[in-house]
Amino acid sequence: MAEVQRMDEVEQELLLNDLKHARMDEFRERFFDRHSYDQGKWFASIEPEEREILYRFLSPEEMAAIFENLDTDEKEIEMYLSEMDSIYAAQMLAQMYADDAVDVLNELDQSQVAGYLTLMEEDAAKEIRELLHYKEFTAGSIMTTEFVAIHAQQTVRSAMQILKTEAPNAETIYYTFVVDEDKRLVGVVSLRDLIISEDDTMISEIMNERVYSVLVSVDQEEAARKIRDYNFLALPVVDIHDRLLGIITIDDIVDVIDEEASEDYSKLAGISDADSQDKGPFSAAKKRLPWLIILLFLGMLTASLIGRFEKTLDQVAILSVFIPLIAGMAGNTGTQALAVAIRRIALGETAKETAFKILMREAGTGLIAGTVCGVAVTGVVFVWKGDLVLGLLVGAAILFSLIVAAVAGAMVPLIMHRFKIDPAVASGPFITTINDIISILIYLGLATLFIQNLH
Amino acid sequence: MAEVQRMDEVEQELLLNDLKHARMDEFRERFFDRHSYDQGKWFASIEPEEREILYRFLSPEEMAAIFENLDTDEKEIEMYLSEMDSIYAAQMLAQMYADDAVDVLNELDQSQVAGYLTLMEEDAAKEIRELLHYKEFTAGSIMTTEFVAIHAQQTVRSAMQILKTEAPNAETIYYTFVVDEDKRLVGVVSLRDLIISEDDTMISEIMNERVYSVLVSVDQEEAARKIRDYNFLALPVVDIHDRLLGIITIDDIVDVIDEEASEDYSKLAGISDADSQDKGPFSAAKKRLPWLIILLFLGMLTASLIGRFEKTLDQVAILSVFIPLIAGMAGNTGTQALAVAIRRIALGETAKETAFKILMREAGTGLIAGTVCGVAVTGVVFVWKGDLVLGLLVGAAILFSLIVAAVAGAMVPLIMHRFKIDPAVASGPFITTINDIISILIYLGLATLFIQNLH
Repeated sequence: MAEVQRMDEVEQELLLNDLKHARMDEFRERFFDRHSYDQGKWFASIEPEEREILYRFLSPEEMAAIFENLDTDEKEIEMYLSEMDSIYAAQMLAQMYADDAVDVLNELDQSQVAGYLTLMEEDAAKEIRELLHYKEFTAGSIMTTEFVAIHAQQTVRSAMQILKTEAPNAETIYYTFVVDEDKRLVGVVSLRDLIISEDDTMISEIMNERVYSVLVSVDQEEAARKIRDYNFLALPVVDIHDRLLGIITIDDIVDVIDEEASEDYSKLAGISDADSQDKGPFSAAKKRLPWLIILLFLGMLTASLIGRFEKTLDQVAILSVFIPLIAGMAGNTGTQALAVAIRRIALGETAKETAFKILMREAGTGLIAGTVCGVAVTGVVFVWKGDLVLGLLVGAAILFSLIVAAVAGAMVPLIMHRFKIDPAVASGPFITTINDIISILIYLGLATLFIQNLH
Repeated sequence: MAEVQRMDEVEQELLLNDLKHARMDEFRERFFDRHSYDQGKWFASIEPEEREILYRFLSPEEMAAIFENLDTDEKEIEMYLSEMDSIYAAQMLAQMYADDAVDVLNELDQSQVAGYLTLMEEDAAKEIRELLHYKEFTAGSIMTTEFVAIHAQQTVRSAMQILKTEAPNAETIYYTFVVDEDKRLVGVVSLRDLIISEDDTMISEIMNERVYSVLVSVDQEEAARKIRDYNFLALPVVDIHDRLLGIITIDDIVDVIDEEASEDYSKLAGISDADSQDKGPFSAAKKRLPWLIILLFLGMLTASLIGRFEKTLDQVAILSVFIPLIAGMAGNTGTQALAVAIRRIALGETAKETAFKILMREAGTGLIAGTVCGVAVTGVVFVWKGDLVLGLLVGAAILFSLIVAAVAGAMVPLIMHRFKIDPAVASGPFITTINDIISILIYLGLATLFIQNLH
């Protein structure tokens, strides 16, 4: 049957049995029949003492393939590495694709990294050390240095020969980059082009000279965008002298896009990470409480603000009935504007427009939405309570609140982006509370002004 | 210079000039020097009458390459096609990769589709007609039928020969699927394996028999998940008899992941589409107003609910001061739980746990978060107002509200998912309002019960 399901429970049990009874050959046969992603899932699911047997059954190189596919967090990585003999761990890291090894090492502290690097062969250590220099979230940090480069003055035959030799180590051989004698990037040839060309054709004849690249220091999102827009399988990374340093492959980009989207999403919800598995209520509460506590104190601020209007509220108790309505509408309008602004920043669209233009559009949007909602609410309150002044008051408060909320929702992330602060601070709940406060100020302020007209 | 920036304005001006002055050769030279993604961007930016000249300058086949890379919506597609001569349009559609042509045709109405199909050559029309049968958002709807299939009893040499011939038409040649005489999928060979093998090796010796595939009818997200988890460049799509129908390539998956993430995101924010460009405040308001109006009426419900407690509020005006705080905390807790639940559904993780277990965990999370926040708020209110009963009342209201809010936030999308309703209705603002109402009921209900103890 071609459709292979992820490892089912019976298979997992059998694997575990082989492991526990030290049947190494049976275990290896069964284990290597699986995709490394499934191997990784299983690896993460078993107990530490079971994993220790596994490390004896698998070579560092075999373990490297599993580690490359592991979907894991900082603590787990530290745990796995500490379970291994340090020489075994260092050999495993050396055998991984350099970009994946760097991902792992980035989770450890400096002294641990240094320790593993000294235990490695010099070649592997050097490659990893170079990649470790690049700042996290830059193109440099996600690129791999295992790529194939050829020269323009080669024939297709000799290029294919190089590919055959390099294929087992290169992360992709589907694009081959062409460099000059100074290692400067001058072109690209796809394996497809190589295959359909005659053996004696010169690379210079078939290469595409319009090769797209990114600077090593740009944000990883920019590289992701380019690969997505242009449907590339690999994108070369260069230094300022146009020298080829590495390549970024599409499978790494899928992870970047996924991560960035989930980051924006978590921000909007006010959680530190919506994606990772919550193992129990304590770990879930730990992720959510920081925001809730900040909100609690912002909420107390709101409460003390309303407290200032206690006299007004005492005189006209009906006023308090509409506080949640007005605050809620303003909060939601702000979240909508925030969501759009954050997506635009993520998609790199803010560069095309001035901040002023964006804010004017938000003000316009708030004005239109506020007018529609304000008129509707005035009508409803008038019919319900028979009080036109109260209706007009609530309607006007909604109109003004929505304008301010839309502008504020867009402005906060834009300002943060301008000052290169991560807009994480401007998460959904934060904006909501800000707009609660503003809208309540507007509402109760107006009410206090027109208190004589209310009954 | 290797780093090629997206078309700059000067280049765009030059292209337009060549077009307007009917300098076809110069235009074509300049135009084809660009990547088809940039060609598409430019195509979409010029005026209809300019595009009409363009259609005369480019063959349907050349136009097809541009259309495949176009990032566009329903209305624009209809416009472009209507600008073209219908035979030209039909030829262009026939020249596109079948899956991309189907994406375009899915935006048109039935009669238009039928019209174009009759104008096409029978072969192309048949291929497209078959793909059109698959329901939107299934694996079938995003697969392409332009793939290379070989047999196990071939040599590497003859397989490479087939690849050379098929390469110009196939969407990817980097994975070649192996089928038996009944077209059943039996294995996969990567181009990498073909390249490093000797010419006389049999495919059966080097092929991987553990080939992963998806059924044609599964959701596109499942296919996307598989490609992402296993780092595939292409995934075969089969019918229930395991016959190979088509393949899905990684570049299509990047779009799926992007779309799904942005859908979840927009839901949480309560907008119909956070990604698409807002051209002005009216179109932005149009996207946001539907939710705001629903919220307005839900908010009126909240208001009328508070109205029921007017007597209580009249007696103890200070109570109203804490309404936004309690409603806000409950709303945010609900949004957090909702966000986590929606992500889990999207990642396909809900199948592993019973709904009961998920809800119990949320109740636990709410209990922990509620206890922490409740104790904190009791302390603050006591210190601030010197009223322990009021403090306890607000604290207890927060405790109970947070438990209910966390459970409700997770329950609503789970129930909808169970009944196969799109959880879009359970968007962020909706859950927030529900939790506003519940929390206010709890708070003012408790207050009314203990009114004698308050001063």
